[in-house]
Amino acid sequence: MKITLSQLSFHTGNFEGNSSKMIAAIEQAKSVGSDLIVFAELATCGYPARDFLEFSDFISQAENSIQQIANHCLGIAAIIGSPRTNPVKAGKDLYNSAYFLSNGKIEEIVDKTLLPNYDIFDEYRYFEPNRQFKTISYLGYTIALTICEDLWNLHDNPMYVTTPMDELMQFNPDFVINIAASPFSTAQISERRNILGGNASRYHLPIFYVNHIGAQTHLIFDGGSCVTNAEGSIIDELDFFVESTKTYDISKKTDKGISIETNKPNPISIRNKYEDIENALVLGIRQYFQKLGFKKAILGLSGGIDSALVSYLAAKALGKENIWAIMLPSNFSSEHSISDSLALAKNLEIGYDIMPIENTFQSFMGTLDKHFGGTTFGLAEENLQSRTRGVLLMGLANKFGHILLNTSNKSELAVGYGTLYGDMCGGLSVIGDLYKTEIYELCRYINRNEEIIPEAILTKEPSAELRPDQKDSDSLPPYEVLDSILFNYIEERMGPTQIIGNGHSKELVQRILKMVNMNEWKRWQAPPVLRISKKAFGPGRRVPISGKYLS
Amino acid sequence: MKITLSQLSFHTGNFEGNSSKMIAAIEQAKSVGSDLIVFAELATCGYPARDFLEFSDFISQAENSIQQIANHCLGIAAIIGSPRTNPVKAGKDLYNSAYFLSNGKIEEIVDKTLLPNYDIFDEYRYFEPNRQFKTISYLGYTIALTICEDLWNLHDNPMYVTTPMDELMQFNPDFVINIAASPFSTAQISERRNILGGNASRYHLPIFYVNHIGAQTHLIFDGGSCVTNAEGSIIDELDFFVESTKTYDISKKTDKGISIETNKPNPISIRNKYEDIENALVLGIRQYFQKLGFKKAILGLSGGIDSALVSYLAAKALGKENIWAIMLPSNFSSEHSISDSLALAKNLEIGYDIMPIENTFQSFMGTLDKHFGGTTFGLAEENLQSRTRGVLLMGLANKFGHILLNTSNKSELAVGYGTLYGDMCGGLSVIGDLYKTEIYELCRYINRNEEIIPEAILTKEPSAELRPDQKDSDSLPPYEVLDSILFNYIEERMGPTQIIGNGHSKELVQRILKMVNMNEWKRWQAPPVLRISKKAFGPGRRVPISGKYLS
Repeated sequence: MKITLSQLSFHTGNFEGNSSKMIAAIEQAKSVGSDLIVFAELATCGYPARDFLEFSDFISQAENSIQQIANHCLGIAAIIGSPRTNPVKAGKDLYNSAYFLSNGKIEEIVDKTLLPNYDIFDEYRYFEPNRQFKTISYLGYTIALTICEDLWNLHDNPMYVTTPMDELMQFNPDFVINIAASPFSTAQISERRNILGGNASRYHLPIFYVNHIGAQTHLIFDGGSCVTNAEGSIIDELDFFVESTKTYDISKKTDKGISIETNKPNPISIRNKYEDIENALVLGIRQYFQKLGFKKAILGLSGGIDSALVSYLAAKALGKENIWAIMLPSNFSSEHSISDSLALAKNLEIGYDIMPIENTFQSFMGTLDKHFGGTTFGLAEENLQSRTRGVLLMGLANKFGHILLNTSNKSELAVGYGTLYGDMCGGLSVIGDLYKTEIYELCRYINRNEEIIPEAILTKEPSAELRPDQKDSDSLPPYEVLDSILFNYIEERMGPTQIIGNGHSKELVQRILKMVNMNEWKRWQAPPVLRISKKAFGPGRRVPISGKYLS
Repeated sequence: MKITLSQLSFHTGNFEGNSSKMIAAIEQAKSVGSDLIVFAELATCGYPARDFLEFSDFISQAENSIQQIANHCLGIAAIIGSPRTNPVKAGKDLYNSAYFLSNGKIEEIVDKTLLPNYDIFDEYRYFEPNRQFKTISYLGYTIALTICEDLWNLHDNPMYVTTPMDELMQFNPDFVINIAASPFSTAQISERRNILGGNASRYHLPIFYVNHIGAQTHLIFDGGSCVTNAEGSIIDELDFFVESTKTYDISKKTDKGISIETNKPNPISIRNKYEDIENALVLGIRQYFQKLGFKKAILGLSGGIDSALVSYLAAKALGKENIWAIMLPSNFSSEHSISDSLALAKNLEIGYDIMPIENTFQSFMGTLDKHFGGTTFGLAEENLQSRTRGVLLMGLANKFGHILLNTSNKSELAVGYGTLYGDMCGGLSVIGDLYKTEIYELCRYINRNEEIIPEAILTKEPSAELRPDQKDSDSLPPYEVLDSILFNYIEERMGPTQIIGNGHSKELVQRILKMVNMNEWKRWQAPPVLRISKKAFGPGRRVPISGKYLS
């Protein structure tokens, strides 16, 4: 039997586009004599469809897609993830299902048992969990068909009381298929491999795994579809961050189990954290623009490392001709803020303009003079400069139909070291899930062969340049210290006692955690952040604004 | 036996404050000879504590609060909602529990069975559902102790397959206690009464019900704690929107059941939709400021109905002396935009200033002239004016430590008829869950006895005044039509076919739904919206930005 894994990029709610893509893949698989093609979880409607799933009109369209695709399943079978109306009244309205299409119709349906409902996942908001187990019989093989999280409890995941594969083993399956929507994070690739290998070796069964690739606003899917043998080794892997399709020849061994063959097997790849992050962010930018129908990005260049990195990533994602960098110096801007920005624009070959903000800033100050007169220059005046820049950038974006890219980093978003409606403006936060120390690492990685981001930008001391001789270190501890505390608190959810126990001063820890919690109101209004860690700001982290915890 | 219902306002994460409040209530109840005092769901930590629940440090503090409160439970018992660590490894880390405290210690714990996980509720994100049922025995009575949603399945709620009261009936309880965190919406009071009455009559048992009052950022709790008899009638009700405590005397009837007596029973109140909305929004503003430690609000007055209404509500919530209204006319502003605003400020007795934006707007236009020169005046220029106002208002808010109140309404938030970082600025959206037609209704209600909001503001045609002679009706259908389509789509989740079937033109419905879905990116960055409907923008409505559904 020939099995084709089809790792595709889908567009949430674009039923026609997603179906056409799958139908084309089915026709292509037929042409190479494949017997079964496998697509990802919720492939018809895209993942995550979020509250669109609550519209019966939306579900009807997904069900129509399945019927339409089934018409093409003659001489080949297909496995496709799609939402399904729960036929009984009790329980949630939907199942998260895997359809087995063959002979031009729906032959079998398997529903998802373990529904992730943590971090960015809300599946129990929409879906009823499966409670009845069955396998698929096809061409003499018994297939254990599972959906993503169904494999994520090897009796060691405290979130679940069921282990679906234990149930499926009573049917003596020959192999496992898992269709997934497993978003990228820097830790996810190795965790996913461990889970797949762990299941394969525990149950002594090969696994065929198909994931999404592509980006849906804040979530990035890296693909990494693969095949394991019954010993738990990954014997072939599809490429990461691109669409990819591959066909495998399987046959029953004379003794027991199945053998799997493919052309040019791709051994398990060694991952580089910063290469993966770069690819993820580039994909995230590119698909955000494509899916919204935009072509060009605009951004403010400060001469600092954050806007430099975003410029590089955007140019890679959209083409250098589609990036418009604006330098917006004030009277507090250093000379190098412009010269370093110009060097960057030259290296990246991107277009730029210089628009000083001093006149407008002074105009604001004039209007406010009745109330600001006699007060000390402070945060309000700093914010005014940042917001003047935001208005200019948004004006250009609106006038010419571009998207403004946000350049905030995770460290500053965490402690509120940024101006809401100022440098926090933008349609997409590109590096909002990277701590400042990670931004340096990523830039060093980008510069590994040649100086793409000017060295001066990497070595100068970080500054917001909103008052004379200002430095980030005036109000924040060194970034290595800050990021370590933030990582403990945000990613590892440690309380103050534990973090102090890691060797930080009590006063500093309390001050930093208080800054994080008191700035929740700013993050509520932040743009969507491309998620690359296991705990990004945004829908995966839901924290009260008016709470009084550590604040 | 004497039972005291204690309807209090809690502050999320403020363990010390919440505990002190409950301890004071316990001491007060002791002084009137009460045997049992009942507090609301998750009273120790506040509701919703959201992802704070994922911090073991936070849970420890809740557990400490319970111990501390238990020390005061001598000669009286208390029922208190609090999170509890799941003692077994399998399943989610926590239970949503009701503690029964007596004799200075924890005597019993009951866990919540039905976990709401829809709209603004995310309980399955944190809590494992209860699967074992038991009652509480106290002073000769058998109490069926339930937590909020546990009563919300009378065999007719498709979300759940369990009906906790069916299970509890095997123990022959004498009455039911339900501790709740049931947020206000215009439909909720009658739904809640129906559910309580339905349970009481179905099981022939009286119910003692305790809800939260207060506001947690976007959510408002109206209280409405009450007692039903065994026939399903509400025999006494605590006041809405205020803290309230009341004690009942119960005794066993000679035949069967219990009799309930109280001083001055408060019969079931007749609710007025707009009175409730006004009270809810006033409470929402007041507690947002209190809980964040702010006192004064600033807002922009346009001469329109939205900012007029917000000014009135804010003055009522914070005191007229704490409101600073700013009029920010441009060259496109009508004369009445100022005169009507002045009349309003006079009626409300609030402070005001006038700050024309023309100079700063022209300064922006000058800076942008290289690129804007020769183009047609359009949306970009309209947004520039709105953003100039946003910068001035935020500048004043930052300088003087005030909170800027947002004045967007639900109709314009829905179709994107507003400027991100302009009139969409603010720390809290006060009327973002009110359609424009509801805003007129609410203002008419406010003016029922005297002209508080000047009549001219209520009768003029709505306009953003961002270009000459602009009217909302230039780009939008009449608000009665628009709001009806929006209500069908947002609250009732109808698809286009259904809405067209309600008598709207296909072209109009498609255009409006497309506007709603294409403006998701703006709402992502909107301030928290005080929720008064069953489907508000914000955490209760989770929609993809880069999706392609009806867009």
